[in-house]
Amino acid sequence: MVVPSLHDPFVYGITPYLQRAFGSIGVGFSIMTKDPDDDRYNRMVGAFKKFYSGLILAGDAADENTIRSLRAMAYPFVLLEKSVRNLRLNTVGTDYADGARKVVDHVVRLGYKNILIATDRLASQFDRQLISNLKDNITSKEGMNKPFIVEFDMPVDGGEIDQGQIDHYLRPPYSAEIIIVVQADLVYSIMSYLRRKNLRVPQDVAIVSMEEGIGFDLMSSPVTCLRRPLSGMALKVSNMIWSEVRNAGKSKYKRQVTISPELIVRKSCGTI
Amino acid sequence: MVVPSLHDPFVYGITPYLQRAFGSIGVGFSIMTKDPDDDRYNRMVGAFKKFYSGLILAGDAADENTIRSLRAMAYPFVLLEKSVRNLRLNTVGTDYADGARKVVDHVVRLGYKNILIATDRLASQFDRQLISNLKDNITSKEGMNKPFIVEFDMPVDGGEIDQGQIDHYLRPPYSAEIIIVVQADLVYSIMSYLRRKNLRVPQDVAIVSMEEGIGFDLMSSPVTCLRRPLSGMALKVSNMIWSEVRNAGKSKYKRQVTISPELIVRKSCGTI
Repeated sequence: MVVPSLHDPFVYGITPYLQRAFGSIGVGFSIMTKDPDDDRYNRMVGAFKKFYSGLILAGDAADENTIRSLRAMAYPFVLLEKSVRNLRLNTVGTDYADGARKVVDHVVRLGYKNILIATDRLASQFDRQLISNLKDNITSKEGMNKPFIVEFDMPVDGGEIDQGQIDHYLRPPYSAEIIIVVQADLVYSIMSYLRRKNLRVPQDVAIVSMEEGIGFDLMSSPVTCLRRPLSGMALKVSNMIWSEVRNAGKSKYKRQVTISPELIVRKSCGTI
Repeated sequence: MVVPSLHDPFVYGITPYLQRAFGSIGVGFSIMTKDPDDDRYNRMVGAFKKFYSGLILAGDAADENTIRSLRAMAYPFVLLEKSVRNLRLNTVGTDYADGARKVVDHVVRLGYKNILIATDRLASQFDRQLISNLKDNITSKEGMNKPFIVEFDMPVDGGEIDQGQIDHYLRPPYSAEIIIVVQADLVYSIMSYLRRKNLRVPQDVAIVSMEEGIGFDLMSSPVTCLRRPLSGMALKVSNMIWSEVRNAGKSKYKRQVTISPELIVRKSCGTI
């Protein structure tokens, strides 16, 4: 599997499931990162063929060039959490339209009106789609104020995020009551910041994450989040690539599978 | 860099630092996992040469075969968190003898006498060394009882650990007052279990982790742990491999660097 980055809770989480899934098929499995600046990447894809019978491309690792060259070689591959318009390819992904609906319904039911959407500035295209889903869902509800979207520069070294950004939106005229955080990593930074400022979650500001993160159930307060069905995704993607490999990349039908994420309600966004 | 597994908080944590370090040198950087069952791995090492000017081998990815073949080709490489007796190689690692001393001193100062050491059954050799360091340190202190070591089978799917194992040791005659957890991952499982049993940390049982984990500062209770100097390690290892690359793997002197971890005191083990 080729992934854009290892510093990603999704990759961290799905790895053991994939290892188990491929283990039960009896196939070796390895993960590598794609350096976005590496020009030799395309040559490497050719070299992969010698060692791997198939590839899983996750998220932004599935760029157009790579997909084109893999298709040209009829090399078996499956896209994970990435879909390409116009092309029928084998894909497994989360149904984020449904996820956004679940989160917004929950937030509306709890009576929140002022929503802040927090995202990493380097968000992938995937996340941008998700944010516009969230926005559309919120504005379609009656009585909700227009959500504000704040892009954070995530510090590389685990330091603090820019402080003014949150403060500004928590005060009038915005008075954000709830923060929908798009990336799990950003949740840790925001929670650290709120704790240092003695702002309570969910009393002073509520938090919902669009992604499950490590230890979210043990945090104070435990974080409400969408959980991707990692076990199911790992099974689907491993079966799909395995049947592609057996058909030598020439399967007649390409399959698109989307799986709905589950909303795990915890204390960080209050309870009804 | 080749790592034994991606589901490792250390790899997750050091990745952004390494990316930044290599970015500032102006060198591409990629990480891949080594499948322990993959027999073709040795052939692949040869293929790496075409694409990578040097390798970092982390932990158990640095097995004897690989090291031998890399040395034979004079291929530049550095070991991270692994050292090999009898051979002078470039290594960067944490000084766990010092780390064990720091943890045990802290535990003794807090007045705990009954210590349980919890570890993953599939612990690497590295962790075994660390456990015997801990044991030696504890038995060398006056008035301490012999520590008990429990090996847990970590569930692949993030499920619960075997319950009887902890219960048994928390009750007399063991009456463990504090659990020293060797792997950060195991901390999450143990904390989940304690919470479900309504056992309070640190009042009913204290916890110290030998490894920093994601979100440890935000958990309830925040977890006392050893923190590896990730930023410093990333800098050292990137500089070392870069100077090896410039010398084409033929540097006259091999360097062994060990860096002391820092004890981060939080609430999970009580305060003086």
